[in-house]
Amino acid sequence: MSQRTAFQQHFAHSRPTSTSTAELDALAAAAATAAPVWRAADAATRASWLRAAADALDAHIDELVAIADEETRLGETRLRGEVGRTSGQLRLFAAVVEEGSYLELTIDDADPSATPPRPELRRTLTGVGPVAVFAASNFPFAFSVAGGDTASALAAGNPVIVKAHSGHPRLSERTAAIVASALVEAGAPEGSLGLVVGREAGNALVQHPTIQAAGFTGSLGGGRALFDLANGRPDPIPFYGELGSVNPVVITAAAVAARGEALAQGLVGSFTLGVGQFCTKPGVVFVPAGAGFEDLVAGFATGSAGGPLLTDRITEAFPSGIAHLEADPSVTALARGLPAADGAARPVVLTTDAAAVAARPTALLEECFGPVTLLVRYSTPAELVAALEAVPGSLTGTLHSETGDDVDAVLAVLERKVGRVLFAGWPTGVAVTWSQHHGGPWPATTSLHTSVGATAIRRFLRPVVFQDAPAHLLPAVLRDEALATLPHRRNGVLRLP
Amino acid sequence: MSQRTAFQQHFAHSRPTSTSTAELDALAAAAATAAPVWRAADAATRASWLRAAADALDAHIDELVAIADEETRLGETRLRGEVGRTSGQLRLFAAVVEEGSYLELTIDDADPSATPPRPELRRTLTGVGPVAVFAASNFPFAFSVAGGDTASALAAGNPVIVKAHSGHPRLSERTAAIVASALVEAGAPEGSLGLVVGREAGNALVQHPTIQAAGFTGSLGGGRALFDLANGRPDPIPFYGELGSVNPVVITAAAVAARGEALAQGLVGSFTLGVGQFCTKPGVVFVPAGAGFEDLVAGFATGSAGGPLLTDRITEAFPSGIAHLEADPSVTALARGLPAADGAARPVVLTTDAAAVAARPTALLEECFGPVTLLVRYSTPAELVAALEAVPGSLTGTLHSETGDDVDAVLAVLERKVGRVLFAGWPTGVAVTWSQHHGGPWPATTSLHTSVGATAIRRFLRPVVFQDAPAHLLPAVLRDEALATLPHRRNGVLRLP
Repeated sequence: MSQRTAFQQHFAHSRPTSTSTAELDALAAAAATAAPVWRAADAATRASWLRAAADALDAHIDELVAIADEETRLGETRLRGEVGRTSGQLRLFAAVVEEGSYLELTIDDADPSATPPRPELRRTLTGVGPVAVFAASNFPFAFSVAGGDTASALAAGNPVIVKAHSGHPRLSERTAAIVASALVEAGAPEGSLGLVVGREAGNALVQHPTIQAAGFTGSLGGGRALFDLANGRPDPIPFYGELGSVNPVVITAAAVAARGEALAQGLVGSFTLGVGQFCTKPGVVFVPAGAGFEDLVAGFATGSAGGPLLTDRITEAFPSGIAHLEADPSVTALARGLPAADGAARPVVLTTDAAAVAARPTALLEECFGPVTLLVRYSTPAELVAALEAVPGSLTGTLHSETGDDVDAVLAVLERKVGRVLFAGWPTGVAVTWSQHHGGPWPATTSLHTSVGATAIRRFLRPVVFQDAPAHLLPAVLRDEALATLPHRRNGVLRLP
Repeated sequence: MSQRTAFQQHFAHSRPTSTSTAELDALAAAAATAAPVWRAADAATRASWLRAAADALDAHIDELVAIADEETRLGETRLRGEVGRTSGQLRLFAAVVEEGSYLELTIDDADPSATPPRPELRRTLTGVGPVAVFAASNFPFAFSVAGGDTASALAAGNPVIVKAHSGHPRLSERTAAIVASALVEAGAPEGSLGLVVGREAGNALVQHPTIQAAGFTGSLGGGRALFDLANGRPDPIPFYGELGSVNPVVITAAAVAARGEALAQGLVGSFTLGVGQFCTKPGVVFVPAGAGFEDLVAGFATGSAGGPLLTDRITEAFPSGIAHLEADPSVTALARGLPAADGAARPVVLTTDAAAVAARPTALLEECFGPVTLLVRYSTPAELVAALEAVPGSLTGTLHSETGDDVDAVLAVLERKVGRVLFAGWPTGVAVTWSQHHGGPWPATTSLHTSVGATAIRRFLRPVVFQDAPAHLLPAVLRDEALATLPHRRNGVLRLP
């Protein structure tokens, strides 16, 4: 079977099936053929391909949202917004490619008088090669087939093969078909975007010799298994996983006194948003004992609504996760939200105390997907810091304090434990911008890089330096005429075009 | 035993012994205490600490070189040069810290009119925490206790614990004592630099909960074992290893015709330099069949000198590595250098052909430390490219061609397979500059980062972003007054101070 035929046949399936080894090999061969074309494409060309993908998503929004709502029950409003986020990500990366700083162009001129004589060196970043992307359940667009991992991998100059999430198989297939067609119509090579289905195919994908890096958003268990496969290869590859986060929040007594009601309302809004299925859900909230904050939270939580969860697995895991927490002798249920329909999740607020968290962090600080949060009462700053030290690496940490609070010790722990520190608002909601960092110490992410925002592109690039190269053999971006139009460092000095 | 006492006792040992678990715990506790001090130190302070370490090395050069020569037999000239390289690396990283681009400061101002409203985000990079550095045998200074890994980890704001190489134990101990003292005298905290001895201690070090990243230069076997330990932790950490490289060289027939004698002389000089124990030694050289290049190489190789190898293990491995290659039916010995003293290595040039390399790459392309290189005859461009495709990831790839040669296919493979592509000269010699990249696809290195040059600092930094932070709670580098003096990106636009 020719590569082209396998590729076409794959997308011709009207129903997703498990991808065979032969089909994966064909997709990988097509990606390997496409890789040098993506790497060599100049900025304007690569940006135009990314924008073509964005335009295609927007053009098919009605059809895609309808499929997504059937498969995920996330609702049209949320899903339409997510399509906009997804096409916006593709366009941000088009801008990143055009701006050019991401190449980290660095030139050192020759210095024959140095000891030893220094050669000319010209460094750029270049695509690592075909990338595997493992789609998430909770963002069927923005962290899925054409989501941020895919956008940043393509922007870096790499073809992508996506492992579809089983929670939205038809949407995955349709999105891949639309985006792959749009890319080819815009002039990108066949093999720019492939899709595999099934757990076995995913495992084979991350171990495939053609694949040079992988992005993943999902559970700690699933992510760890793939991380181990990626690192267990004869030639290990970087595995960029986002695996789980409890997103600690610290509220001071002064903050409760100044704006307790607003904070309680905000917290309930945040932990129930999207039925508590955001990776940045505030899962553990340190509250001052005796300040009355629990009552305020209970008041708002009682009126809060849950809803259906994304998948059967999450639906089953939610009550058992709560039961696991409630089995700890220190834990009591503070409030429950409005009764939910059969099979849907009802919001729950649990409470415990800081001493229990410090003593039994593994039992009390495991991420529980769904509308549940754990209030942790603290009485002294020392108790607070000790409990906070027990919190695993997280994507976010939030501090609600007032001027005059001594928060140095708390901030020192948060800065070490999380990737984003918030001083207002709530962690749900992740702006897609140049500065965003969506990552954190293990298990929040498996690397020192972000999966959201402009710098996510760095994950899929590797440096290469050219020593004493004749101008005509240099990559175009490293020639003098290109340097005149691109940010670069020359002999240690950063220069703007 | 107090941390301080254990730390002092460790350095008080007149003979290196294996570091105990209790000693390692004490060193780790001291490093954990030092970490926030290093992270918080401003650029001028951190740079002054690095320069104090550099000055101390230079001030003790006579004593250190004498110990190093006893332990490594590398000779005074080479060792003096290496001390200069090592103190120079520390000073380069001081300059990198002062320049400030390495922080990747990125600000997005709030935009309340956006949908959803965009918060203010301010991003910087910050130290990952205490770093483990595994010293190499072949650079007792520059890739050892106070070498590039240590310099870049300290520059990033992290204390370091070094695993001494067994090839130069007394030098390791003395260097650590000198540099640790100089750091403390310059105002850096106790616990800035620790040293452990023994394989078991090294294994425990990379698995220690306090350690947040590791740097390594050494063998594929040893590096892979530590890589697996680092990734097998409950909380895996990045392991930046440089594990082995055959450094392919391609010579065209036109280049042989134009300057065959100079190329042959240069090659022999490069593969025998430092008794063939550089990680960038040209280990496999693709030469045009029938161009007479082998004879030229044989001529120079016959007069070349070997010498004693670094360690007993390397001394034993060298003849068995050659025997392993000669066992292949395609391999013949082309030339041997001057007879060497007992236990010393005599240069050897072997030959084979491209078809054999393409057919049996595992047998023919394993790195062999010492003064040996393998000439691979090719007859057609297709044969050359097929054999080159079989070369494992390498630190360098060198192309000697003439204007008019069609080298596109060769360059395409080299750019994908190596981190540094050379068009003149030889790969031994790695300039320590802003642009240098000393890395490559597995097994050259285990990551997409360099271990030499300014950007090596990125390995030991993690991003953290502050959302809607009051100015007085921001890290100093993210406040408006600091931004005025530092390169940064604001709302997508890169700005120079």
